[in-house]
Amino acid sequence: MASSNYNHDQVKAAGLFERFWGKIVRFGLMLKKLGQDDPRRIVHSFKVALALTLVSVLFYFEPLFEGFGIAAMWAILSVVVVFEFSVGATLGRGFNRMLATIVAAALGIGAHRLATLSGNQGEPVLIALFVFVEAGIVTFFRFIPQMKARYNYGLLIFNLTFCLVSVSGYRDDEVIRMAFERVGTIIIGSCIAVAVCVLIRPVWIGVELHNQIATNMEKLANFLEGFGDEYFKLNENGQTRDQSLSLQGYKSVLTSKGSEDTMANLARWEPRHGWFSFRHPWNQYLKVGNLTRHCAIKIEALNSYLTSETQAPPEVKSIIQGPSMIISSECGKALKELATSMKKMIKSSSYEPHIANSKEAAEELKVVIRSSLCKHSADSLHIIQEGAVASLLFQIITCTEDIAEAAHKLASQAHFKDVKPRVTPDQENSVNDGPHHVITIADTAT
Amino acid sequence: MASSNYNHDQVKAAGLFERFWGKIVRFGLMLKKLGQDDPRRIVHSFKVALALTLVSVLFYFEPLFEGFGIAAMWAILSVVVVFEFSVGATLGRGFNRMLATIVAAALGIGAHRLATLSGNQGEPVLIALFVFVEAGIVTFFRFIPQMKARYNYGLLIFNLTFCLVSVSGYRDDEVIRMAFERVGTIIIGSCIAVAVCVLIRPVWIGVELHNQIATNMEKLANFLEGFGDEYFKLNENGQTRDQSLSLQGYKSVLTSKGSEDTMANLARWEPRHGWFSFRHPWNQYLKVGNLTRHCAIKIEALNSYLTSETQAPPEVKSIIQGPSMIISSECGKALKELATSMKKMIKSSSYEPHIANSKEAAEELKVVIRSSLCKHSADSLHIIQEGAVASLLFQIITCTEDIAEAAHKLASQAHFKDVKPRVTPDQENSVNDGPHHVITIADTAT
Repeated sequence: MASSNYNHDQVKAAGLFERFWGKIVRFGLMLKKLGQDDPRRIVHSFKVALALTLVSVLFYFEPLFEGFGIAAMWAILSVVVVFEFSVGATLGRGFNRMLATIVAAALGIGAHRLATLSGNQGEPVLIALFVFVEAGIVTFFRFIPQMKARYNYGLLIFNLTFCLVSVSGYRDDEVIRMAFERVGTIIIGSCIAVAVCVLIRPVWIGVELHNQIATNMEKLANFLEGFGDEYFKLNENGQTRDQSLSLQGYKSVLTSKGSEDTMANLARWEPRHGWFSFRHPWNQYLKVGNLTRHCAIKIEALNSYLTSETQAPPEVKSIIQGPSMIISSECGKALKELATSMKKMIKSSSYEPHIANSKEAAEELKVVIRSSLCKHSADSLHIIQEGAVASLLFQIITCTEDIAEAAHKLASQAHFKDVKPRVTPDQENSVNDGPHHVITIADTAT
Repeated sequence: MASSNYNHDQVKAAGLFERFWGKIVRFGLMLKKLGQDDPRRIVHSFKVALALTLVSVLFYFEPLFEGFGIAAMWAILSVVVVFEFSVGATLGRGFNRMLATIVAAALGIGAHRLATLSGNQGEPVLIALFVFVEAGIVTFFRFIPQMKARYNYGLLIFNLTFCLVSVSGYRDDEVIRMAFERVGTIIIGSCIAVAVCVLIRPVWIGVELHNQIATNMEKLANFLEGFGDEYFKLNENGQTRDQSLSLQGYKSVLTSKGSEDTMANLARWEPRHGWFSFRHPWNQYLKVGNLTRHCAIKIEALNSYLTSETQAPPEVKSIIQGPSMIISSECGKALKELATSMKKMIKSSSYEPHIANSKEAAEELKVVIRSSLCKHSADSLHIIQEGAVASLLFQIITCTEDIAEAAHKLASQAHFKDVKPRVTPDQENSVNDGPHHVITIADTAT
């Protein structure tokens, strides 16, 4: 490449080409990573391509095309705008689009008719008035929070269809024919989108929400299980805190409220699938999610002591070490049990012994604080810092109990499976075999 | 109404009517409240109605309608889907729609041409292949985070236009004419939407973001300014904690990340307006927002001591009361100064004395902790609790400093006004007249 025959320009061009090529390669790698991170993205792209090809071929070949004429494009348009990643979103948009089109077309025909009756002079004035009033009202309705959450897209389509139908400068019977064509093609397009979305490897947003709530608990559990080792053994071997990065997964929980709310809204559109019924208690999921987030805030506070520059000397830390490590790891185990039984969709009380253990350790920690912490000769600031850690751990027990209660209620409301306790080899490590380990049906059932 | 002449059915009907009427009244009141809470919602509804009436009347009367034929509806469609509440969102959608339509129409014409050349038999196969490949690729591109943030809508429209143009069963010259019509009407519709949105009482999303970031700081400031009184005087007169509800405004800051990110994305579409340039440092706003949220998490932790059932007795609280109240209120004042100068868009160092005061009080608090807190004869658990409060207050000082630094950098990057200090009557209360109160140009300027 860099032979002496090349002049300056050629070398420059080669360099440019290489940089350009490098960009393309990086772009390709990024695309590959996107696909590897979630292969369902590739499946979704295929599904959209398939649905669009289907609707295109349908209207290309079929005599329908002759009948519907230009209206055929509404079918293509519907597939493009209705097809979303999840079933819930697709159904929501499809339903919104179809219902709004039908209602608005009917009203639009009425408006058109009224305007025509008023004669040539009154017609444009009346139509303009109708459009103005309708658009103003419907646009304002989009600000109503409950409407926005579920029918935002429908109101948009209502606006659109009403205008199109009432404005069209055709004779009455033609308007009606066009409206029918439009409604028909929109229904065909929406149904193709929904069918492809549901029939080929569907992504249920309800399942996503279910898994996200469980995964968020797991993230907190990971932090709590690792916290003790990180915090108390930090000073012993003077490690840097790179390891604690693996505990930082909980941070995403802090800002997950928006996505959970959206998912719950979309999940309400989904029909029964697997263990999820049409009236699954999505609100209870949001409650569990909120409590998990509340606990994540406590953990964030705890984390600030882990990453703080000023650490108490080991001898001060060691005063509270024993019970603190138990509280942290037992709360972590309880959350992990809760996450596991949620993922398996079973009613389980396997978290209870862990909470009991952590409460026991909390009593012990209180005794330690009363008897030794304040009497230690160390710098009071360090003592206070350990006190703050202990205080947060007490709060985390309460949070864990709250989460457990809400998750238990959820298991009842959602009719999770009622299983006999089965102690498998990998459960033996984490589950006490004490009397607590009897699976009961939640008495908080609705 | 309930006269004895009425029979059972009539009474029932009257009851039903009353309940129905009650619902309507409540709905009306809810709408009224929506409008009162933010009168711009009413203005927006009028603007949309006006734009739609404009485009309807235009195509109803003009000979354009004859020329464009059925394509006129694309103009109406464009107004409905492009017109958003803020200028940024409207411009973003309008730009996405116009650019995507032009590029996709050109490509679609090419695809149509290629398919036609291959003869009657190859045409449908080639078209189906083109649509499949194009739809798959473009749909996958929508998963790229950077694309999704700014060009999600454009990619959707690209998909749509490419299919419509390449699938249409017309002769080549007709396809080109139709594509031109479509592009023309879409540009007309989008421009009407953008013009009405910008010219009549525009809502700049950049200004919204600016104000929200400042308001969030104020919410934290309100909590901090009120915290001292609430916490330390709680036990004295045994009040219930209803009053502290007025301090809970900060809670909304905890979950504001999503809306801030969206606003910053949309603000990037907006041209220069007022003091906001096209390349306003929106990223720095997000940084300030993140630091504010980080501080809100500390405040949430502090709040749990305010609302906790177990409160230390007044004599324990009183040990740390003096310096703690100063730290809290001075941090609050500093944040309020920062919020005020941000709202006024001025470079100001009026927050500095407050931070200095809080740091001084922190040193004092450390002395108090070292000298008295642990030596008090009270229950160690109460002492530890006060220690935790103190520890959080120390962290809040650091947070406040971080926010101040980021806000100061923002003021430089955004070229806020450089003003001479002016002590107005209501500033006198909150601003020290010490040597700190000299307004300097930030040395962190880019």
